[in-house]
Amino acid sequence: MAGKDGKTSATKGKKKEVKKETGLGLSFKKDENFGEWYSEVVVNGEMIEYYDISGCYILRPWAMSIWEIMETFFDAEIKKMKIKNCYFPLFVSSGVLQKEKDHIEGFAPEVAWVTKSGESELEMPIAIRPTSETVMYPYFSKWIRGHRDLPLRLNQWCNVVRWEFSNPTPFIRSREFLWQEGHTAFATKEEADTEVLEILELYRRIYEEFLAVPVIKGKKSEHEKFAGGLYTTTVEAFVPNTGRGVQGATSHCLGQNFAKMFEINFENEKGEKCMVWQNSWAYTTRTIGVMVMVHGDDKGLVLPPKVASVQVIVIPVPYKDANTQGIFDACAATVKTLNEAGFRAEADYRDNYSPGWKYSHWEMKGVPLRIEIGPKDLANNQVRAVRRDNSAKSDIPMAGLVEGVKETLDNIQQSLFDVAKQKRDACIQVVNTWDEFAEALGQKKMILAPWCDEEEVEKDVKARTKGEMGAAKSLCTPFDQPELPEGTLCFASGKPAKKWTYWGRSY
Amino acid sequence: MAGKDGKTSATKGKKKEVKKETGLGLSFKKDENFGEWYSEVVVNGEMIEYYDISGCYILRPWAMSIWEIMETFFDAEIKKMKIKNCYFPLFVSSGVLQKEKDHIEGFAPEVAWVTKSGESELEMPIAIRPTSETVMYPYFSKWIRGHRDLPLRLNQWCNVVRWEFSNPTPFIRSREFLWQEGHTAFATKEEADTEVLEILELYRRIYEEFLAVPVIKGKKSEHEKFAGGLYTTTVEAFVPNTGRGVQGATSHCLGQNFAKMFEINFENEKGEKCMVWQNSWAYTTRTIGVMVMVHGDDKGLVLPPKVASVQVIVIPVPYKDANTQGIFDACAATVKTLNEAGFRAEADYRDNYSPGWKYSHWEMKGVPLRIEIGPKDLANNQVRAVRRDNSAKSDIPMAGLVEGVKETLDNIQQSLFDVAKQKRDACIQVVNTWDEFAEALGQKKMILAPWCDEEEVEKDVKARTKGEMGAAKSLCTPFDQPELPEGTLCFASGKPAKKWTYWGRSY
Repeated sequence: MAGKDGKTSATKGKKKEVKKETGLGLSFKKDENFGEWYSEVVVNGEMIEYYDISGCYILRPWAMSIWEIMETFFDAEIKKMKIKNCYFPLFVSSGVLQKEKDHIEGFAPEVAWVTKSGESELEMPIAIRPTSETVMYPYFSKWIRGHRDLPLRLNQWCNVVRWEFSNPTPFIRSREFLWQEGHTAFATKEEADTEVLEILELYRRIYEEFLAVPVIKGKKSEHEKFAGGLYTTTVEAFVPNTGRGVQGATSHCLGQNFAKMFEINFENEKGEKCMVWQNSWAYTTRTIGVMVMVHGDDKGLVLPPKVASVQVIVIPVPYKDANTQGIFDACAATVKTLNEAGFRAEADYRDNYSPGWKYSHWEMKGVPLRIEIGPKDLANNQVRAVRRDNSAKSDIPMAGLVEGVKETLDNIQQSLFDVAKQKRDACIQVVNTWDEFAEALGQKKMILAPWCDEEEVEKDVKARTKGEMGAAKSLCTPFDQPELPEGTLCFASGKPAKKWTYWGRSY
Repeated sequence: MAGKDGKTSATKGKKKEVKKETGLGLSFKKDENFGEWYSEVVVNGEMIEYYDISGCYILRPWAMSIWEIMETFFDAEIKKMKIKNCYFPLFVSSGVLQKEKDHIEGFAPEVAWVTKSGESELEMPIAIRPTSETVMYPYFSKWIRGHRDLPLRLNQWCNVVRWEFSNPTPFIRSREFLWQEGHTAFATKEEADTEVLEILELYRRIYEEFLAVPVIKGKKSEHEKFAGGLYTTTVEAFVPNTGRGVQGATSHCLGQNFAKMFEINFENEKGEKCMVWQNSWAYTTRTIGVMVMVHGDDKGLVLPPKVASVQVIVIPVPYKDANTQGIFDACAATVKTLNEAGFRAEADYRDNYSPGWKYSHWEMKGVPLRIEIGPKDLANNQVRAVRRDNSAKSDIPMAGLVEGVKETLDNIQQSLFDVAKQKRDACIQVVNTWDEFAEALGQKKMILAPWCDEEEVEKDVKARTKGEMGAAKSLCTPFDQPELPEGTLCFASGKPAKKWTYWGRSY
């Protein structure tokens, strides 16, 4: 396959020159300068465009389609659970916003305020929602009267604004982001507890089944829990390159704290006045950033097949004197067959780019599988398939196209998860003492340590690890607890340990 | 069917008392006090909750589900057209916002400004998007280089803010609303022109096929077109009760005006530098309000089956000594059969409400079809079906349930449109002179008049009709033009008429 080989040099060692020639490629390497690599890969992969207001980013179709695929999954799942979508206003009056003290303390510094319309000053400044607890709960109070009004289970897909000043990062930390936020009220704590975990499982599935990113389910510490809530559960991801944990998505039990503040009461079956139990839960466009950080490589994005808007890119590899029309027809037939079988496949017929340029282009965009069709493939009634994740090549006979592609995509999806899990697991370090902890932190580990579970000790750990890289904090107490032998002491305080908890730096 | 009859008195003349007894019902009549009726019906029908910030409203699940059904349709249609979804920031810097003069003049008085975050003043006030032309087009300029980058066709589903001070009305005129906004760029005017009409046809389908609201397709006058655009096409609805037109949705050709301001250029096949041709188009949650205004009645909402989240409500009508369990089982079987056939059906099993209360409740919410199952129905192996739109009752044998329900729902959908069109058509008045025009306006007509098409004359019509009810303006010049005999004069100026145009008061 001389013709094709000549053009695939991009994947065969001569990378640098080819990249220069095509104007594609990344100037930074993931292992050498992760921050710059990330900024470059989200832009060159056409997911993000930087915007002229700092901390705001444009989500281009290549990113938006991933968000939509996850949304379709999650929305259908919560509808099965009888959770209904609604839409509450973007704006919240300052009086209502400040009703729950702990809550507003957590958000106040980041709230954006509208004070003018046209040329007129507003009578009272109006806040833009950083989250919607205080927006919604006055109405929960109005709508809930008796036990038959419960459970009340609402969700909305919307934008929120948190005007943070620390390092903005596309997807991971931005001043406006997209999310879903669920807000539910129950008659009993048991029902609320159950839902917290059902939702957390959906979040796990988004990360592990869709984004192929391994996460750890657990509970946040008192210090790290949602401001004003009772307890917070989380799926925690980890980025080996930076040695930082990422709070992947959180499902909170709010207890009765907001119910008290907003007077969300109901009459139970016996005619007694009771307070509801509430949850709130959310996942955001941050999910996409975590996926990029975990799977991306020096050639660009690497998209898991389940969320890729183009799963298979078909590239004609014509050769002088070859049957060009036949090759183009075979490409069209391949796309048609795959689309009809339910795959998202496209062909790149552009005549102003070489096959080599196209290979690099679609590698940058992270398309899971490339199919090349050249004269020899045509003659042999086959296609050449090249995996994005590990560059493995195989020939698939046209007669077995659908099965071959299905198998390969399934394999890529699983393999991305397995490789990511292997790398993540290799970063997990079990420690018992402060010295071991400090050493592991220096090695950018995700640290599992026995802890006394005291808030003051967590604050102390933060203080003692302050530095250029940021302080360490607790990530989560995993539900899956290793045995804690009696007499085990806290790594930080030396007091009796109560649980194993993950620690590390985080986004 | 004595038992059932006894309980259906709500629909049989004793309405007033029953409503009092049940606490349901509306205090205002559509024909007597339309404004109050509308406010009440959107609240009691559980579509809207008034919010503590004026001009902002809560979209409850009953409204949101209608929006989602339309979104699913429209989103699939534009994806077939290769239009891709994206998400641009909520915020726009003042410099960019003010780049296109005519455009900003149209929006400036309604722009909400963020000036503070937390306790800090921002260096520069930042605007909240009232629409996204100026947000997006600097990036169109960056992304479009050559003819192969065209067409560029993007859409986003989002919220926008227009801080209007004139009468806020749920759905129809609110300070924040949901919409989709499409923004596209083409190499040629012909392509842009074609898309404008393709999108307008989708808007017509949303109104006529989904919401069963008749609309007139046409072109806006120079005075009424989109600020900064070349021309605006519209689907115009009409509310007979108030005699007001409603701009249903608009599809604009922006020409090359924004391209000039934002320098959106491309190199064509010949290597020449050219400017793109642009469109933008949007429909909003206003659609839902128009539907409520057109179909609602003194019993509440009337939802067309295509957009109703519950198309069929099944109500058990037990009677003392009757086989209550049998009735409940038949209700469950009915719901199951209908759901499996693809209908959105639910049963109301609540034991603390009488069947009569439930009838009123679901009538208020506008569910298209009610199915009652009582002892006699059980014995006869049938269900009783009651239409929301015209109260017609029929018995459907269980054996023919799916066919019977399908036929009835189809019939309701068509009948709602036919009745609405008949009423709308009865409001259309053709006039030739100013006196006829003034008389028709007094009679709240949608007036079709020959016009000279001069902007000064339109301004003059506005000035001459100013008053408590609001001035008349041009609604649209319908694409479907009646013959204009030579020598026909403009109704307002007496100059030679160039076209037939619709006039009236509007929302």
